[in-house]
Amino acid sequence: MTVWLDGDWLGDGAAVIAAGDRGLLLGDGLFETLRFSGGRLLRQAAHEQRLRASCAALDLACPLDRIALAAIVGEMAARAGLRQAAIRLTLTAGAGQRGLARPAMTQPSCLITAAPLPEVPASLSLATVAQRRSVSSIAARHKTLSYIDNAMARREAVRSGAGMALLLDTDGHVSGTDCANLFWMREGRLFTPALECAVLPGTVRGAIIAALDVEQGRFTPEDLALAQGVFVTNALLGAVAVSGIDGAPAGAGQGVPDAVRAVLD
Amino acid sequence: MTVWLDGDWLGDGAAVIAAGDRGLLLGDGLFETLRFSGGRLLRQAAHEQRLRASCAALDLACPLDRIALAAIVGEMAARAGLRQAAIRLTLTAGAGQRGLARPAMTQPSCLITAAPLPEVPASLSLATVAQRRSVSSIAARHKTLSYIDNAMARREAVRSGAGMALLLDTDGHVSGTDCANLFWMREGRLFTPALECAVLPGTVRGAIIAALDVEQGRFTPEDLALAQGVFVTNALLGAVAVSGIDGAPAGAGQGVPDAVRAVLD
Repeated sequence: MTVWLDGDWLGDGAAVIAAGDRGLLLGDGLFETLRFSGGRLLRQAAHEQRLRASCAALDLACPLDRIALAAIVGEMAARAGLRQAAIRLTLTAGAGQRGLARPAMTQPSCLITAAPLPEVPASLSLATVAQRRSVSSIAARHKTLSYIDNAMARREAVRSGAGMALLLDTDGHVSGTDCANLFWMREGRLFTPALECAVLPGTVRGAIIAALDVEQGRFTPEDLALAQGVFVTNALLGAVAVSGIDGAPAGAGQGVPDAVRAVLD
Repeated sequence: MTVWLDGDWLGDGAAVIAAGDRGLLLGDGLFETLRFSGGRLLRQAAHEQRLRASCAALDLACPLDRIALAAIVGEMAARAGLRQAAIRLTLTAGAGQRGLARPAMTQPSCLITAAPLPEVPASLSLATVAQRRSVSSIAARHKTLSYIDNAMARREAVRSGAGMALLLDTDGHVSGTDCANLFWMREGRLFTPALECAVLPGTVRGAIIAALDVEQGRFTPEDLALAQGVFVTNALLGAVAVSGIDGAPAGAGQGVPDAVRAVLD
């Protein structure tokens, strides 16, 4: 009984969604991935703020107004016997008559699941993929259920022997990876692509920017090639050093800066 | 019992999908929308060809290898008492462990539903939305379950008083609408955006191109503004005249050319 669906506790295989839900049919919905550790959800406030903002952008009622996320997750971890967990909250737009326009009356679903935390690698390699993110795409700027472009980018990267895909935006600027934000050091300064480069506003990204002096801007792959220390961040992995990009060593072998580690610990 | 799901006939509300299906969680899957009329699926071969090509692109097993689509749809229409219907085939990637990379073993689902045909308007108006389609996006070039960008484009268009959204690609060229391909006439010639303009290869678009002399290319909104007769096409609507774009009359009030009507009849 480790799945929570609209108020019910269900076994892993028992949770189902109506086949007419727009979340399935059109990718009309949102999700959040959170790290549960030490009895709490890391950066819960930032995740909740992002979900509220995305719900507003997509005109969905935010489930956080009616559920106590921390209490559900705490019980879920206890039921599953997990001291650390990857928590996913999935919000669908609900079912309605067919067609692109969302009907006024739908019944959204909120699904919360827990899984063991993925192993955090010491470092990982990136491959730049052909796909470029549109700076005006809703799917690029929000964590929507329309995630196929990221999944296909990962597929292309893995096929070329890398661990994650590096994506540019449609203006040719560095955007980030298929599931993480990108940072790098150069001459003692920290850099990350600005949100207008089709960047998803990651919670770890936000924490680093709030704590340290980070230059956000529009950067080219050539800028990135000059970096001394490249790393990616997301809620589950924290910060992971990038060992190589497109087969070339990245960032002069430097890992995640101590100042960044200190922010995340 | 008008829903077909993996071999079972179910009532409309009874069809459910596992909450762990990647089709729901990541928009990892495909769909086709077909018109059933006069006892048959219109342009069935073209739909099947497109689905097979998209399955290959997404590395999904094509359900058409194991089901007889026409027979299922014929029985479905009879059960539902529909002489004409909008048929939707939805293919999910199936459930697997969490994460972006699709596991080798998943259990895809194939869902087929029928709904009354939407009313075909005499004409409709378009509004150009801010969102631009990435020419390298899988979601733009295939009919995937990651459809949120189209849904949000429609939302923006409807809010500005139009019936459909007109989208440009990320290079500024005319792409099409949120759910249809775009054509126009000028000086007796037919034009439509080329596939490389983030265009979904519509089956009606294909039929018109196969039958008539159509110039496919990269066109700007200024090219479109000079058109004499603008219309949109998709499987359910056939061809519908565009009455206006962004509040200005479109195409000098001309409707769908007779030669195009003749192709579709």
